[in-house]
Amino acid sequence: MKAHVYVTLKRTVLDAQGQTVADALRRMKYQGVSDVRQGKYFLLTLDEMDEVGARTEVERIAREVLVNPVIEEYSFRLEA
Amino acid sequence: MKAHVYVTLKRTVLDAQGQTVADALRRMKYQGVSDVRQGKYFLLTLDEMDEVGARTEVERIAREVLVNPVIEEYSFRLEA
Repeated sequence: MKAHVYVTLKRTVLDAQGQTVADALRRMKYQGVSDVRQGKYFLLTLDEMDEVGARTEVERIAREVLVNPVIEEYSFRLEA
Repeated sequence: MKAHVYVTLKRTVLDAQGQTVADALRRMKYQGVSDVRQGKYFLLTLDEMDEVGARTEVERIAREVLVNPVIEEYSFRLEA
């Protein structure tokens, strides 16, 4: 089973990296992008376990290791 | 409309960052994670455009700016 974990800065935190990408796109004349936020993406390969167990374990890993809860938030999805 | 773009190293490229996370998880006694790959995540906010236009524009931006096609691959999804 695979878990896709997406970590982004909270809405209220300035995302300098994302703004730099957005500014670069504007300078390079790419149309129609009004905002960019940049984050991290983790693809975890999990050993055999049921969905409830996987969900619990991924949430624990995200909260305790992958995410800085002061400035970041996360979401994830499981894939069989 | 929003576009979620996920950029990862190709399977054939050594992902030192991901391996470091995987090793750390093992050392910290997290169970059941056999592999970690780390990548980048971009959330683009697009101006009003139809889905075909958005798809074309996001693919262009990903290919030409966000992704290094020599070592990286990407996927994306649109959200109304």
